[in-house]
Parts: sequence; C-alpha cells; structure tokens
Amino acid sequence: MSYCQATYRVYDDKADFNKKAESIAVGMTVGSWTELPQTKREAMQKHLGQVTSVEVVDNGPGQRYADLTIAYPDVNFSADIPALLVTVFGKISMDGRIKLTKLDFSERFLSAFPGPRFGIQGVRELLNVHDRPLFMSIFKSVIGLNLDELKEQFVKQALGGVVLIKDDEILFENELTPIEKRVEACLKAAEEAGRETGKKLLYAANLTGPTSRLRSQAIKAVQAGANALLFNVLAYGYDVLHELSSDPDINVPIAAHPALAGAFYPSPYYGISASVLLGQLMRLAGADLVLFPSPYGSVTMPREENMAIRDELLRTNLPIKTSLPVPSAGIHPGLVPLILRDFGQDVVINAGGGIHGHPMGTEAGGRAFMQAIEAAGQNIPLAEYAASHPELQSALQLWGGER
Amino acid sequence: MSYCQATYRVYDDKADFNKKAESIAVGMTVGSWTELPQTKREAMQKHLGQVTSVEVVDNGPGQRYADLTIAYPDVNFSADIPALLVTVFGKISMDGRIKLTKLDFSERFLSAFPGPRFGIQGVRELLNVHDRPLFMSIFKSVIGLNLDELKEQFVKQALGGVVLIKDDEILFENELTPIEKRVEACLKAAEEAGRETGKKLLYAANLTGPTSRLRSQAIKAVQAGANALLFNVLAYGYDVLHELSSDPDINVPIAAHPALAGAFYPSPYYGISASVLLGQLMRLAGADLVLFPSPYGSVTMPREENMAIRDELLRTNLPIKTSLPVPSAGIHPGLVPLILRDFGQDVVINAGGGIHGHPMGTEAGGRAFMQAIEAAGQNIPLAEYAASHPELQSALQLWGGER
Repeated sequence: MSYCQATYRVYDDKADFNKKAESIAVGMTVGSWTELPQTKREAMQKHLGQVTSVEVVDNGPGQRYADLTIAYPDVNFSADIPALLVTVFGKISMDGRIKLTKLDFSERFLSAFPGPRFGIQGVRELLNVHDRPLFMSIFKSVIGLNLDELKEQFVKQALGGVVLIKDDEILFENELTPIEKRVEACLKAAEEAGRETGKKLLYAANLTGPTSRLRSQAIKAVQAGANALLFNVLAYGYDVLHELSSDPDINVPIAAHPALAGAFYPSPYYGISASVLLGQLMRLAGADLVLFPSPYGSVTMPREENMAIRDELLRTNLPIKTSLPVPSAGIHPGLVPLILRDFGQDVVINAGGGIHGHPMGTEAGGRAFMQAIEAAGQNIPLAEYAASHPELQSALQLWGGER
Repeated sequence: MSYCQATYRVYDDKADFNKKAESIAVGMTVGSWTELPQTKREAMQKHLGQVTSVEVVDNGPGQRYADLTIAYPDVNFSADIPALLVTVFGKISMDGRIKLTKLDFSERFLSAFPGPRFGIQGVRELLNVHDRPLFMSIFKSVIGLNLDELKEQFVKQALGGVVLIKDDEILFENELTPIEKRVEACLKAAEEAGRETGKKLLYAANLTGPTSRLRSQAIKAVQAGANALLFNVLAYGYDVLHELSSDPDINVPIAAHPALAGAFYPSPYYGISASVLLGQLMRLAGADLVLFPSPYGSVTMPREENMAIRDELLRTNLPIKTSLPVPSAGIHPGLVPLILRDFGQDVVINAGGGIHGHPMGTEAGGRAFMQAIEAAGQNIPLAEYAASHPELQSALQLWGGER
C-alpha cells in the first residue's frame, strides 16, 4: 500500500483531536466506515485514510491546537497536484480553523513528476557560475515602455554584473512589447553587454495569457531565443507549471513568481503554509527558481518560514532536482551577508529598487551588489570593503549595512 | 479611460491609510511616480492606478481597518482572470494584513467573458422546472465502487425525485469508473428512473486529470452523453473554467465545486472574500451552478457571507447570465424553509448525507426533501405537512426542523 500524507494544524479549544483526525481520515476517503458491513469493509480497506499522528499542544484558551497527520491511499486519486490538493484539502479547508502545513509524497506519486528540468546545478551550468550566489535583477516600471526603452534598461542592468534578469510579473502580453519581440530585444541587449562583461545571462520573460495558449506562447518565446521564463504559478495552478516544465519543447529554466501567495500562507489558522505552497509544490511542479518574500526587506515573511521554504527546495532526499531559492523584495547590498548566512551559496540575490534606486544609477547599483557578494565571499565586513569600493559605499550609506 | 477596481480591507493600528492606498495605486501599476520627470508623467498617466475611496473604521487596538478601493487601468493587463488577479492582488497579497474583498469589472474587461452558458434560466429549461427550487443529490462514498454499484446508487437517488445528481469531487479518473463509462451507466440509470418519475435529470460528472487534457476529457464525456460537468475550479484556476465554459464543443452546464476555497476566505485579515472567490469570479468564469458551504449545515460559512455570494451570483446589472447558488454540506429536509427564506426560489437544494442517511433509505430520503419543498412552496409548516408524509416525518425526527 502506498500513501501520500498531509499534516494539518487545527486550532480548537475543546475538540477531541483524535476523533477529529479519524473523521478526516474517513470523511476524505471512503466517506463512512462504522456503518459499513464487514464484507464491504474488507473491500474498502485499501481506500481508507489512516491517522499517522496526533500531537496536541495546549497553550490555553485560543491557543490549543494539534498537528494531525493523515495518510491518503494513492489508489484514491490520480497522480497530479489538483487531485492531491482536492483529496487532502478540498472540503476540509472549509471546516473550521485548519491549515495545511506539510505534505509527504509517496514514491509512486513522485514518479509522475520529473521535477525541475535544470535545478540548481543545471542553472549554474547554463550560466557557468559555480562558486558564488547568483545575482538577478528585475525590470522596474516597465508598463508603458517600448522595446527601445526596455532594451536600454536591460543593458544597464546587464552591465552592472547580473546573470539573471526577470520581467516584472505585472507585464502581460501587450502591443508595445509582445513576448517574442521582447525576447529578441533583450537577448540582443544581453549579447551587447556580454561582450563587455564576458558574462552569460538568462532573461526570464513573463509567460501570460489564456491557459490553453501558454504552451504555444512559451514555444514562440523559446524560438525567438528566450533562455528562461517567468510564470505566475498560483494564478494558473501548479498543474500548468508541471505541464510546462515537463514539456520537451520548452527546454529553458522556469522561475516561479509568488504572486497571490499571500492569499494562502500568512494566517496561522487557515490556508497553506509557505513551505508547502512555495517550497514543496513549486519544486514538485518543476520550478527551477522560486521567488518569495525574504525576511529582510520591504515585503517580509517570518524568517523561520523562509528557512522552511529553503529546506524544501534544497532537501536531497527526493528523486527530483533542487530549486534555487530567490528571497525577494526590498533587497539591497547591505543585506547580502544576511542572505548568505541564511541560505548559503545556493541562492539568488534578487533586487529591483536596490539596483535601480542606487544614487549612482542602475549600473552602479549592480556593481554595489557584486562588491557585496565579493566581500561576503571573502568574509570581509561590507563596511571595510566599501572603503575601496565607492558603489558599495554609496549603497550602504543609503540603505544601511547588516542588521 | 477604462478601469477595473479592487477593494481591500487592510488592518493596521497606525497606518496612514491614504498613503497606503496611494502606494498600492502607484506600486501595482507604474511602480514610481514622484521621481518621474514631468514629460514621462504625461506618457504614464494612462497607466497609473487611481485611489477611488478610503474608508477608515477604528474599533480600537487590533481592530482599526480601512476599506481601500483602487482603480487599475485596463490598458495595463490582458483581459483574463490570471492577469487581473496578479495585477490587483499579486504582490500586495503578501504585504501585511490585507484581504481582497470586492472586484468591479469594467465593461471592456467584461466583454471578454461570455459568462455562464446556461445560467439559471437555461438550467431550468433543460430540466423543465420553473416554479420551484431545484433539488440535487451527491453520490456517497463512491471511491472503490464499480459501474454497477454506481448505477444502483444513481437509480435510488433519481427515484427520490432529484433533478440533478453530482459526482463526489474526490472521484478522479480511475480504472473502475472512467468518465465516459460513468456517464453511460448513469445516463442509462437516469433514463430508467425517468420512465417512473417522468423527470428529466442532469448528471454532473467530475472533470479531472491534467490541465491540457481537460478539454478532450470533457468532450469525451459529452459525446458519451454527459449533460453536465462538475469541476474543482480552484485546483486548476479560473481561466481553465473560463476556457471550458466558453468552448462551443462543451455545451453542457458546469457546476463549480468550492474545494480548497477554505484556503482563501475564512480569515478576516488575509485572502480573498467568499463573495469574490465563489461569487464574482465563478460567475465571470462561466459556472452555471456554484457550490459553497451553507450557514446551516455541518461545514458552515457565516450567513452574511453566503448572502454576499448569492448577491454576486444573482445580480442583474451585469451583461452575463446569473449562476445558480448551491448552499451545501449537512443539508437535511428540516432546513428547506430556511434555505428558501434566504435564497428564494432560484436555488439548488443539495444534499448527500441528508438523503442517503434517511432511516427509510436513499429513495425515501429524496422524497422527504420533495415533501419539504412542496410544504415550503405552499407555506405549510413542515411539522404539519409531515403528519401526512411519513418520509418527511422521519427526517424531521432524526435531524430536526427549522431552526
């Protein structure tokens, strides 16, 4: 027998949590059990959910909860993420204070998922960067820009030293910069900048539009030279990412944007934990890079949740590749040592305002980050390194250093 | 200029809510404004979000909030639901205590959506039921059943008087009852029962599997005779429903199941209101019937949220058809007068355990509901009507009457 497991945190001041767990295990699988005649029970046994564990914590009124783990027979559902989610959290998501906090995939279920096509190692190989964190920038204020303006901004970012540039997630298909034109213009800009920097560069173009046309849009982008894609996974569903990432004709890394994730994870009582939403499921569905709010910047997530996402993206006990964590929003050079302390080398330093808002301009903004990465790599305090690196100096003066 | 609007409830004890609203309007559209040179501003004006209203309510510490309404220029995003959601709630969903509570679609945006193909009137015409609420039942404990067992259960439900029967949402593609076989068996059962009851019947088969194959699965089901579909919309994304419901080859009503909705709506601080999630967006995407937890039964939603969903499904000031509200979960005959008081005649009375769990069996369970609907239609108290209707009598004894 093969099972996928789900863990829930359930808040209730009075509930008999063992009974609650039993009712989920039965109610979300065979529907009823005690009323079944013995012969029927034998036939249904293989479909019955099982309570794996019940751990109760009672911190007084309003703070009594239990972590319930239920095992769901794989035979009950097809091996896709919509079926898994409907099985483990479909109906019960609506039944009181209950949050989905962890998934455990069976080998059988996992075997249906090739996972990230490139993973950390593959992306590093594409970029030929192996010994340091990767550095990414985000276009700024791109709505309304034409191709020339986009290209100009691209070159400035590229000259600053980034190896990844991503579209703004709110840049949709539009007449000024349709995806194939955007890719052409930006890749040409990358080539120009590359002659100066000697660096390879991935440009993640935002894949948007009707669901049934995403595949052909992606192929159009790839044919125009796209070497990466950005995707608003939660606006379309994990299964769409899974299909895109496992499509042999879309052989470029995919960066998963967390847009809408805040509708799921921040409440302690409801929704789906960030580590499931942006960790386990993004990786399973094949994201090579996963963006999420960092604990340091402007839009923040608690540090322990960030670390839980990191653990899920990097854990080595799965038969699929790892995904690159991209802690984002409000990142500036002074935060680089903190990011490296928390994430190690396998991380993407991703900045928008922290590059474009640099007092000496976008290109200098990039250089300030590169200097911070160099300093951190050599364990030199940023303030010390900044003494001989004016771009970093200027960034630290504006945004501050380690906290 | 044409705008779609979004309203948010933002909790914060200290924030300057006008400033917060401005920062959303700018940050989610053009990115920055005050730093832009005057000439640039003129060009970007048409892309700039606008603050429509800011209403502050201060109920003391922890209970100070504001309802902010922001208008987003249609020109910024493509006319699809993923683009709309990413635009209005992508990044800011992660930025503190903020909940999306209302959408307002522009005519231009709406024009891309045909809405429900049948709507309330269309479904009533298919069933030839015009003067009373519609009555639906749900299969019970179908995992592991074979076609004969399914058919047997179908007949019992049909003989009880229902006009709609829906699959369990956790019945996925499986070897025992693949969708086209299921449809054939159930439609044959419907025909048999129809010879006795004289009633037409819609059977909503659950549409599952990989996203790219849903269309062909639906067409296979329709070709096998399916006259309705059930769909776990939130597991796949609204855009998939939109594409299915507007596909000329899938010309049957679609019932939207709310599986996973509880991950979004219950928190007062985060997520998306039930009226947006299960009201506005389900209707826009083309659901002919929308299921949601009722305020009366086992899995419940507050009554005012139910009424807000109802209002969005039924409002007549939109250029698309209305959708049938299906308040569900724990519905028994004694609740029928309550449901009709709250929803009027344009509602689906939907029961599972309240039919199958009837002491006299599934068929009698259906008859008890029909009797309750008859009584309520004639303004006869259920207890009085039950005196001459033993099935209703038995149901009231088990589950109670109006509350």
